[in-house]
Amino acid sequence: MTPVFFDHNSTTALKPEVLEVMLPFMVEQQGNATSRHTFGRKARAAVEQAREQVADAVNAHPSQVIFTASGTEANNFAINGINSNLSHGQILMSAIEHPCVSRPALAMQSRGWQAVNISVDADGKLDMHHLHNLLLTPTNLVSVMLANNETGAIQDLVAIADLAIQHKAFVHTDAVQALGKIPVDFADLNVHAMTISSHKIGGPLGAGAFIMDKRLDVLPLLHGGGQEKGLRSGTENLAAIVGFGTACELAVKNLNTFAEHTQKLRDFCEIGLVKLGAHLFANHADRLANTSFFAFPNIDGETLVMALDRKGFAVASGSACSSDSGEPSHVLLAMGIDADLARGAVRVSFGLSNTIEQVQQFLTVLENELARLRNLIAITA
Amino acid sequence: MTPVFFDHNSTTALKPEVLEVMLPFMVEQQGNATSRHTFGRKARAAVEQAREQVADAVNAHPSQVIFTASGTEANNFAINGINSNLSHGQILMSAIEHPCVSRPALAMQSRGWQAVNISVDADGKLDMHHLHNLLLTPTNLVSVMLANNETGAIQDLVAIADLAIQHKAFVHTDAVQALGKIPVDFADLNVHAMTISSHKIGGPLGAGAFIMDKRLDVLPLLHGGGQEKGLRSGTENLAAIVGFGTACELAVKNLNTFAEHTQKLRDFCEIGLVKLGAHLFANHADRLANTSFFAFPNIDGETLVMALDRKGFAVASGSACSSDSGEPSHVLLAMGIDADLARGAVRVSFGLSNTIEQVQQFLTVLENELARLRNLIAITA
Repeated sequence: MTPVFFDHNSTTALKPEVLEVMLPFMVEQQGNATSRHTFGRKARAAVEQAREQVADAVNAHPSQVIFTASGTEANNFAINGINSNLSHGQILMSAIEHPCVSRPALAMQSRGWQAVNISVDADGKLDMHHLHNLLLTPTNLVSVMLANNETGAIQDLVAIADLAIQHKAFVHTDAVQALGKIPVDFADLNVHAMTISSHKIGGPLGAGAFIMDKRLDVLPLLHGGGQEKGLRSGTENLAAIVGFGTACELAVKNLNTFAEHTQKLRDFCEIGLVKLGAHLFANHADRLANTSFFAFPNIDGETLVMALDRKGFAVASGSACSSDSGEPSHVLLAMGIDADLARGAVRVSFGLSNTIEQVQQFLTVLENELARLRNLIAITA
Repeated sequence: MTPVFFDHNSTTALKPEVLEVMLPFMVEQQGNATSRHTFGRKARAAVEQAREQVADAVNAHPSQVIFTASGTEANNFAINGINSNLSHGQILMSAIEHPCVSRPALAMQSRGWQAVNISVDADGKLDMHHLHNLLLTPTNLVSVMLANNETGAIQDLVAIADLAIQHKAFVHTDAVQALGKIPVDFADLNVHAMTISSHKIGGPLGAGAFIMDKRLDVLPLLHGGGQEKGLRSGTENLAAIVGFGTACELAVKNLNTFAEHTQKLRDFCEIGLVKLGAHLFANHADRLANTSFFAFPNIDGETLVMALDRKGFAVASGSACSSDSGEPSHVLLAMGIDADLARGAVRVSFGLSNTIEQVQQFLTVLENELARLRNLIAITA
């Protein structure tokens, strides 16, 4: 039996329509998009078409799209590229950023910049008063993610950008988890820079984008052949970029369907989870429709994830990226969740391919596994 | 008529056997290799198998292989990662390095390091006396490419590494163009770090590797989820890494066939080129078998490349990566080639798919185009 995949926030299957547009670029000899011959010019044209698709999906201009190999690279580029071009100063970021925002910021501390966390409330929403107070110190950049990968909590980026801009700070948002799940409009958000990624929306791994306001001066992170207007060197990953373009188009087209379908599954799932005694995280926040983050008191999250995996359900304990650490989720700790409860955290993130029957089966399996684990605890206690 | 592709050093077609191993990883739902569930563990196993294939191909240990998204990223990582962990000091590099080595080194100058070029002779071979003199100043790192992308000239890395190590410098080699064309043995080369890339050997774009001696302390260039032992964050590009592994295996298996086949084409081509009045660059150096770099006096390289393209032959003027600049090749200038002759430079780089008939047709077309262009010059002079 094929296991059921409830971990779409970590990576989601390549859409068949995306694979179809990629395949010609993988089967035949392609040119390097920098080459001047026919092969090179065809590659260039395909890259530029994808750039338009990506720009359209987020209401940006194609000239604002810088292709990268991943969301991680684009976030590193944002933090490094913007700050390296400014004098040493303050970098503000929410306490719940993905490590590919927070760790490059922390790494810049050794080079003279200061990285400071902005608090969030118990539902994972940014503390605007704290942001306001922090902005009284001159600030280079404010980086706040549009939607959190673990809880799904959505931030009011318009208000955040407004406040930051009043204090003459640049604003970057990591919109990797938001794209394809809620409308992402670069112009409306009024931020200076934004990160998106291909493999979270049914595109291939190997493509991401840094969307930037032209008023922003950035230094490249990757130096070399001078691709992407000198801002990001390296041979363009033709097939991946082409796939990313189509995935962006589909993500926008399917946005409502995705949100409606996954919300139905999520709501049904959460009714069951609460009946089984779950604590739901960030459930008073405006959240991504497909994401549920919860814990059962006294049940270890890792143990539960393994038990569910053996029964054919793939779910996550915290974010995949930090699964290796064994520490409770930094997102939950920032929300003031007790470390013991946070250690119980399990994330379910649905995709279009999931069904209500799968959720029903999941709840049944979960009930049995919880009973077994609680029984084990009762015996060993 | 499909144009003939004689530009395999810029990028070469994905091998059908490679696409075949990649496809299952693109058709079905895959896990994030950091996830603990079945999907994630399968992804992890595939990445680790590919790591063994890559390590085997260059006689390294799998634990020495750090996957990146490209050769450019691996070279940037080498220059940044090694030097950032050392006190400010001298970075030596050959004057003919690819810009993805030289430009990150130059960018580090603003942060306190010194980047210094090592001269090459008229055939593009490193000047060992110059290296020796430069090493009298304490040096952090010596970076010299194994084979040049434009001329194909192969460096004596063993001697270079030996000299550098005597002077307590670390040694990195960009082996991107060498892999699959000559034997590349990390252990025998005795370097501390090496860069290789997938799409130059019939693997997909989106994968490269940084091979490193365990005695080397490096700082990451991309921070985040902590993948690749914390040295290179970002979700592993599963399909690309799997393809890279198989491409490495095939590159080693086909090494002799590739060298013999392309040398036959190259030798035949160069006999014809010389008859037509070409000046061959680096032709007294030990060169990659598939590469010919030449110029016809008074014939502009770009113009000739365009003319050949219209007649169905894709060749390069200098390296693809610097094609945009309009400047003569920095490699040729470093070799002391007159700038006027260097502006005539055209590179032909063969692959296994090319045939002797294609070369014959190419020489005929070239003869006609040269006659036409020389006639134009005679008229306008």
